[in-house]
Amino acid sequence: MTQWERACAGEFSEELQAVASAEGVDPEVLRQKVASGRVVIPANAMRTLASPRGIGEGLRTKTNANIGTSGPVADLAQERAKLRAALAAGVDTVMDLSTGGDLPAIRRALREACPVPFGTVPVYEAFAEAVARHDVAAVEPGTLLDAVEEQARDGVDFVTVHVGVTREVVAELRRRPRLCGVVSRGGMLIGEWMRRRGEENPLYERYDDLLDIARSYDLTLSLGDGLRPGSLADAGDPAQVRELVVIADLVRRARRAGVQVMVEGPGHVPLNEVEAQVRTAKALTDGAPLYLLGPLVTDVAPGYDHITAAIGGALAAAAGADYLCYVTPSEHLGLPGPEEVRAGVVAARIAAHAADVAKGITGARRWDDEMSDCRRRLDWEGMTRLAIDRDLVERYRREHGPLAGSPCTMCGEFCVYRVGRSQGGAESEAGSVRAGGA
Amino acid sequence: MTQWERACAGEFSEELQAVASAEGVDPEVLRQKVASGRVVIPANAMRTLASPRGIGEGLRTKTNANIGTSGPVADLAQERAKLRAALAAGVDTVMDLSTGGDLPAIRRALREACPVPFGTVPVYEAFAEAVARHDVAAVEPGTLLDAVEEQARDGVDFVTVHVGVTREVVAELRRRPRLCGVVSRGGMLIGEWMRRRGEENPLYERYDDLLDIARSYDLTLSLGDGLRPGSLADAGDPAQVRELVVIADLVRRARRAGVQVMVEGPGHVPLNEVEAQVRTAKALTDGAPLYLLGPLVTDVAPGYDHITAAIGGALAAAAGADYLCYVTPSEHLGLPGPEEVRAGVVAARIAAHAADVAKGITGARRWDDEMSDCRRRLDWEGMTRLAIDRDLVERYRREHGPLAGSPCTMCGEFCVYRVGRSQGGAESEAGSVRAGGA
Repeated sequence: MTQWERACAGEFSEELQAVASAEGVDPEVLRQKVASGRVVIPANAMRTLASPRGIGEGLRTKTNANIGTSGPVADLAQERAKLRAALAAGVDTVMDLSTGGDLPAIRRALREACPVPFGTVPVYEAFAEAVARHDVAAVEPGTLLDAVEEQARDGVDFVTVHVGVTREVVAELRRRPRLCGVVSRGGMLIGEWMRRRGEENPLYERYDDLLDIARSYDLTLSLGDGLRPGSLADAGDPAQVRELVVIADLVRRARRAGVQVMVEGPGHVPLNEVEAQVRTAKALTDGAPLYLLGPLVTDVAPGYDHITAAIGGALAAAAGADYLCYVTPSEHLGLPGPEEVRAGVVAARIAAHAADVAKGITGARRWDDEMSDCRRRLDWEGMTRLAIDRDLVERYRREHGPLAGSPCTMCGEFCVYRVGRSQGGAESEAGSVRAGGA
Repeated sequence: MTQWERACAGEFSEELQAVASAEGVDPEVLRQKVASGRVVIPANAMRTLASPRGIGEGLRTKTNANIGTSGPVADLAQERAKLRAALAAGVDTVMDLSTGGDLPAIRRALREACPVPFGTVPVYEAFAEAVARHDVAAVEPGTLLDAVEEQARDGVDFVTVHVGVTREVVAELRRRPRLCGVVSRGGMLIGEWMRRRGEENPLYERYDDLLDIARSYDLTLSLGDGLRPGSLADAGDPAQVRELVVIADLVRRARRAGVQVMVEGPGHVPLNEVEAQVRTAKALTDGAPLYLLGPLVTDVAPGYDHITAAIGGALAAAAGADYLCYVTPSEHLGLPGPEEVRAGVVAARIAAHAADVAKGITGARRWDDEMSDCRRRLDWEGMTRLAIDRDLVERYRREHGPLAGSPCTMCGEFCVYRVGRSQGGAESEAGSVRAGGA
């Protein structure tokens, strides 16, 4: 039985109980959210997941790290290092997007080492050989579903599937050409296959079979936005919106089939359109968990797309997005290494947490208040312990101070937390203007 | 005559013409904005500013870098390096916030080397000796105004003055104590002075004299928010709002006196309150240029406050803030060095630009579209040239690739900009699904 079926049957699965406890929410409330499809708990039925996560309404905003090889850089040891970096930085889930090297071996090794929900994009593996031969049309329709089933059998918890890239949707691109066309690799491969074969998207045509596979393994489907915008110029265009309408229908069919399902979102979106995109997606899909890549609010900052994504992601999550895929500083430059993975995860976690404070998620603000209380007391041990990246703070303090006689190098005697105490000597803290005693 | 007086007289000053040309706006429209007080052009009348800036409604969102020594780290060479780093990263203005070493010498040296508007916080110098002796109450009221005049005479273009920290405002702190009290150094010093002397804020009592000095030198006043919140917990409290009401009155008085004036804002603000804070400040001050420090949307990320500030800053600027003071990764850890200055400026510029796209500032979106067009064509030379931090992209490409046969290491043969062209050989770009030909 899937998590959804068990929730509908009034059952509290081990995973559901673990999530409720970690989030500090009532298990019965969570059970209802899972049964309504507004929360998913990606956990392949073939294995026991060490550290499950719930994704959706009312829960802490989750973060994902995409790792994986490419043709030019395919090194399993490096991918293991990236996985460790992502986990150490506190990521909630990991996806293997490998496209180079021995894909099944890499996938199995990474999945084995991953205690949190593990996702993949099976279409990459299905197309790998054909891409290498420069002949995407050679892939047979059944290969796509076979790839999904093989990865489900291997214990993958969730997969991105670009089911919404239908002929009708792709036709929109003809009516209103884009600056950057299709930038989803999965969407591009399927679109090219459709064009060359003159056939409908096999994942769409055989969606019922796909749902059967998903239900058998409790494989959570993440409905990929194959036509997500790849530039501000293409955001919110008819192709993107039309695909979302198709995806909304696919969500309904998945729920009827008892399959856990999420919706993926853009991409590149101007800041003033982020909230509207999120609310539209949520409304159309009856509150399905929304998984965003970015969104990047500007295209001009290669090398800093973890920051452009943190801006968009914070805004999106505050508006209702549930799950943020990180973007690393390497985006638009090259394949990230472990250091970029770490930076990407931390930036995504900052965005997620800022949004959780805004959304009023249970316990979110307490973290900020505890940190601020440590600041007020100049309690560096406490500030370090509470920091989102404790290692970085420890390193900074080791390298830069404290210097003799100063709590830190920033203000010296001008420290606002000292002036009220030190100026005039015997003054108690409560007597100072700082604490409100003026 | 001040820029404001000249604009009111129908005159187009050299600085105004330079700003209009740089921004691509009509000089007459800009003249009206300056005359209405909705735009300021900080430019000390005693010197010719190499590269003036306009700050306010309808113009590109500006960024500021705070540099300067502290007691524990006072090294002019280091400050020069920070100034160079800030300018190289494209900052619009620089403030010297030095509190350690020979303050007048440092200020003059930095001002001399700064082609863009240069600001200071004279209260630091006025209090420096007293802070060192641990006796803030020893400062005489006249010292504060003398410090402002001395710095105006030296050619400073704008100063932060904490005029709004009045007895009534500070009394609010007693009625509703804060978690982090007063975190503005200037606000703290003046508040402590007031408490110990039992007197009103000298800058407030002698505001007319301050306006006389400002008008004489066309020194732009930036009305500092001495009671800005230093934690999410303190955001938007009665003390902060009451100070803003006083500041709104000070804006009216400055305008009547022909003095250019800006308003400073927080600080630490939860994401869901940023827009309201900006709109309230703008409404209360009749559209005075709004200068924000941050706002930081979470307190838990020391080492990453350039990112928490970029999130808040982008949102604030999109809602109407005109001017973002950078926050460096060192904030809450120690005094920044040149590398942190660079990172802080770039993050602030990203926030400012993302907001300018959202606000529809003239020419803002063109930059993104040009970058996206280069991406589509895999034009790395163009992408590098257009990048917000060109040096970083050049360094990345030098160190990481391109590798033989791949445009970059990210996707290899799976590159979305190549699949449509390479798969099947002779296909033209227009025929691919990427460009909409499916």
